[in-house]
Amino acid sequence: MKIKRNLNVDDLDFRKADGLIPVVVQDYKTLKVLTLAYANREAIEMTLKTGYAYFFRRSHGRVMMKGETSGNVQRVIDVLVDCDYDAVLYLVDPKGPACHLGEETCFHNRLIGLKREDEN
Amino acid sequence: MKIKRNLNVDDLDFRKADGLIPVVVQDYKTLKVLTLAYANREAIEMTLKTGYAYFFRRSHGRVMMKGETSGNVQRVIDVLVDCDYDAVLYLVDPKGPACHLGEETCFHNRLIGLKREDEN
Repeated sequence: MKIKRNLNVDDLDFRKADGLIPVVVQDYKTLKVLTLAYANREAIEMTLKTGYAYFFRRSHGRVMMKGETSGNVQRVIDVLVDCDYDAVLYLVDPKGPACHLGEETCFHNRLIGLKREDEN
Repeated sequence: MKIKRNLNVDDLDFRKADGLIPVVVQDYKTLKVLTLAYANREAIEMTLKTGYAYFFRRSHGRVMMKGETSGNVQRVIDVLVDCDYDAVLYLVDPKGPACHLGEETCFHNRLIGLKREDEN
């Protein structure tokens, strides 16, 4: 993994979506994408400070530690930032399923109708 | 990969962010997360119809095929949907770098200051 820049929270661009940026959560061992969540500045700061994944939960209207109620916390191994500084990737070591439905990953549904390579 | 539900475009929830949903783009072979992009209904439909990744580019204000100008197109192998139906994961076979800066992935910066497990 070649890192171009080391950034601080001040470098992140929270302006585009009402103070929230999307956070891709990926299992650092299996590399499965677990969840797409959101963070505000406070959630990012709490994540860095504690080493555990915090998000801004839109449905609750506040910052919460992942697993606060379920116990399915996510230890954060690394935090990467994209080229526009407006999206973040948490590489995590999950304790238990990421999805509130008990699935390992939230991405457990498929959109059908995708053209296959062998179709004209 | 256990799939719980097969969905159609009509099942997706575009209401939460002005008709756009976040799209995580992941290399289906290396499993690297390449980009966090956005799609509206038209972008999803074009992706399914053509088998190539389309996004709604906020900076351009319109739907564009990934690689339309650069040639770095992304063949889409699978489209997964999260438990809330408001985020999508494209598993892709990328032809060339995903990032406009020429990097393989857009996530090439690191947020520093993360608490390590061995710290008190």
